[in-house]
Amino acid sequence: MDIFAKYDGLKAAIAGLTQNTPRSPFDVVIERPLSATVGLIEGRETLLFGTNNYLGLSQSKAAAEAAIATVREEGVGTTGSRIANGTYALHRRLERRLAEVFRRRHCMIFSTGYQANLGAISALAGKDDILLLDADSHASIYDGSRLSHAQVIRFRHNDPSDLDRRLGRLKDHPGAKLIVVEGIYSMTGNVAPMREFAEVKKKHGAYLLADEAHSFGVMGEHGRGVAEQDGCEEDIDFVVGTFSKSLGTVGGYCVSNLDGMELIRLCSRPYMFTASLPPEIIASTLAALDEMQARPELRHRLQENAKRLNHGLHGLGLNASPHVSPVVAVTLDAVDQAVAFWNRLLELGVYVNLSLPPATPDERPLLRCSVMAAHSPQEIDRAVEVFGQVAKELAA
Amino acid sequence: MDIFAKYDGLKAAIAGLTQNTPRSPFDVVIERPLSATVGLIEGRETLLFGTNNYLGLSQSKAAAEAAIATVREEGVGTTGSRIANGTYALHRRLERRLAEVFRRRHCMIFSTGYQANLGAISALAGKDDILLLDADSHASIYDGSRLSHAQVIRFRHNDPSDLDRRLGRLKDHPGAKLIVVEGIYSMTGNVAPMREFAEVKKKHGAYLLADEAHSFGVMGEHGRGVAEQDGCEEDIDFVVGTFSKSLGTVGGYCVSNLDGMELIRLCSRPYMFTASLPPEIIASTLAALDEMQARPELRHRLQENAKRLNHGLHGLGLNASPHVSPVVAVTLDAVDQAVAFWNRLLELGVYVNLSLPPATPDERPLLRCSVMAAHSPQEIDRAVEVFGQVAKELAA
Repeated sequence: MDIFAKYDGLKAAIAGLTQNTPRSPFDVVIERPLSATVGLIEGRETLLFGTNNYLGLSQSKAAAEAAIATVREEGVGTTGSRIANGTYALHRRLERRLAEVFRRRHCMIFSTGYQANLGAISALAGKDDILLLDADSHASIYDGSRLSHAQVIRFRHNDPSDLDRRLGRLKDHPGAKLIVVEGIYSMTGNVAPMREFAEVKKKHGAYLLADEAHSFGVMGEHGRGVAEQDGCEEDIDFVVGTFSKSLGTVGGYCVSNLDGMELIRLCSRPYMFTASLPPEIIASTLAALDEMQARPELRHRLQENAKRLNHGLHGLGLNASPHVSPVVAVTLDAVDQAVAFWNRLLELGVYVNLSLPPATPDERPLLRCSVMAAHSPQEIDRAVEVFGQVAKELAA
Repeated sequence: MDIFAKYDGLKAAIAGLTQNTPRSPFDVVIERPLSATVGLIEGRETLLFGTNNYLGLSQSKAAAEAAIATVREEGVGTTGSRIANGTYALHRRLERRLAEVFRRRHCMIFSTGYQANLGAISALAGKDDILLLDADSHASIYDGSRLSHAQVIRFRHNDPSDLDRRLGRLKDHPGAKLIVVEGIYSMTGNVAPMREFAEVKKKHGAYLLADEAHSFGVMGEHGRGVAEQDGCEEDIDFVVGTFSKSLGTVGGYCVSNLDGMELIRLCSRPYMFTASLPPEIIASTLAALDEMQARPELRHRLQENAKRLNHGLHGLGLNASPHVSPVVAVTLDAVDQAVAFWNRLLELGVYVNLSLPPATPDERPLLRCSVMAAHSPQEIDRAVEVFGQVAKELAA
């Protein structure tokens, strides 16, 4: 039995997708970044409107200098797990720092954001517990749930009353109930009604985990995410997040006030059985956190830019996200139209992400655009102009 | 229901473990590394005999300089997945380089070694397939298997005839069969009988994945691992490995000659739904690979050191691993004895890893020691001397 035979359908789908287009949308190479907002792609200076670099900090000078100083002192990696030889003073410092930022007692850092969800969810929920997941949850949430052996129940996307109904049916179930939602959904930019979810959680005595991966550094007066913006941080039992979006590096974390968190260090397999982050990554993440806090204007500019892009795309008559957030999805009807649209945008110097069903929420393809604090108004206007041109070309 | 109630047993076990000892073995902080072989722990210069830094390359000057040059040019992270905005020219270069090193056509790199096993195994094996795992497999192999939805069959550790028997019973099963073994087992230093496994695989028309995480850079004339040493590389369909051991950085990879590998990029969730490695990590990994290849004497010295440590510990009459490999496990009988032994070693300036049942292969605790090419004979002799002193103290 050919081990790849099960992917014959995928192979045919990819071949079909790319037969009339010059390039695959999943095979883009950034030869190198020229700035936070411009990358060299196919030899052309290309405006980057499809990253998660919301504050532009992947190109922070301070973060780079912190990495440089640390790599000279401490080397390029730890070669060990956090529970063996992989905890340096720096790892502890970043954990304390994040705990302070979130005003929580405990923080664990993980080697990737994917592993943060895997490690937190798989350890928090056991085989006798119930996980209640928003139906549009990120793959890392689903994968962590699978590793947990818990019963998984999905509720309708961003729908607290559906969650309420499902929890009502579970009132005699003896296990712990853990609800998992995201602050901002990565593909659509949809924002969770966090306060309503918190009310439902309290009503049913459940636990609530909020993944603020796309909202940390973005939402809330201090950038702590949607829960801060909604004034319901005290009702969030666990906040999961990542360093690879607004902070520009790589890694993830989980913070909580519950003392049981420290036990998780000794039973979460995605935490225990992986090498810890290299010291220079920790140092640049600390520097990026400092910069995020010292420069609230980045967040304000990001919000301005989000509005500008959202209004611009709506102004073209495109089917763009209703929520104003740094992610703006433009939904199209047909896959080949979306692939052609994406290709043409790239040829005209604008890079966005293409997302195809079944990976999209409503079975239609979408062009996922994201803005950064670092984008100039001119860059946003140019991107909108190019969208308009391509829409006209393809309608012609 | 308290979500942490399920860990009451773990909590009690940890409390019991540490009540008579000055520190927890899972809570060590290296204040900073002073060299590849010495770290500052509790204010003392401590000999490191419990890392995976086999060639000492975590402290490579060339790898550090490569990181420095790249972080200045390309920033501290990509903020994107490999299939979106997270493929820089550097990621492709490292994939080509690793493919060349292994003389294979395809290479995928992952953001951690844990995710390499997760991503390769979960995508290669589907729900209609069968995974045959060595019973002592690493957590990442078990977790990847769980994500795959395939049927999982365990065979006796390092036992090709047990594998042969189990495959014999499956001869009418229509699914693909994927065997997963490791080159060197991380806890015990046991070396797989790779050639015999390859024979069994051929006999039954199965696929063979070898995880050479602990053997790459260590075994074989060119450092390609146990399969190279056994002369059976052509029979290994997939080689998985990591950057966080002999190469000193962080990340993982899978190489293969099978063209279907490229499809895995579009269905492996632990590859698709995670941020790619920051450019400076890629650059330092490339530099470490160069150094590994340019300095075969590192591998030779490592083998000498492995012999010296193994013989030294055997010479004390300790129950040390029979295999000579860079990992030497000293098995003890009782957990409290092992915890006391480990503590005393640390107080006398020698750091090793402590592994407790149920995480150990035979339900007995073990002290896992590992050597590096960078250890001097004097450092190894000193570690052996300290082991002897502690053994005498605890026997008294």
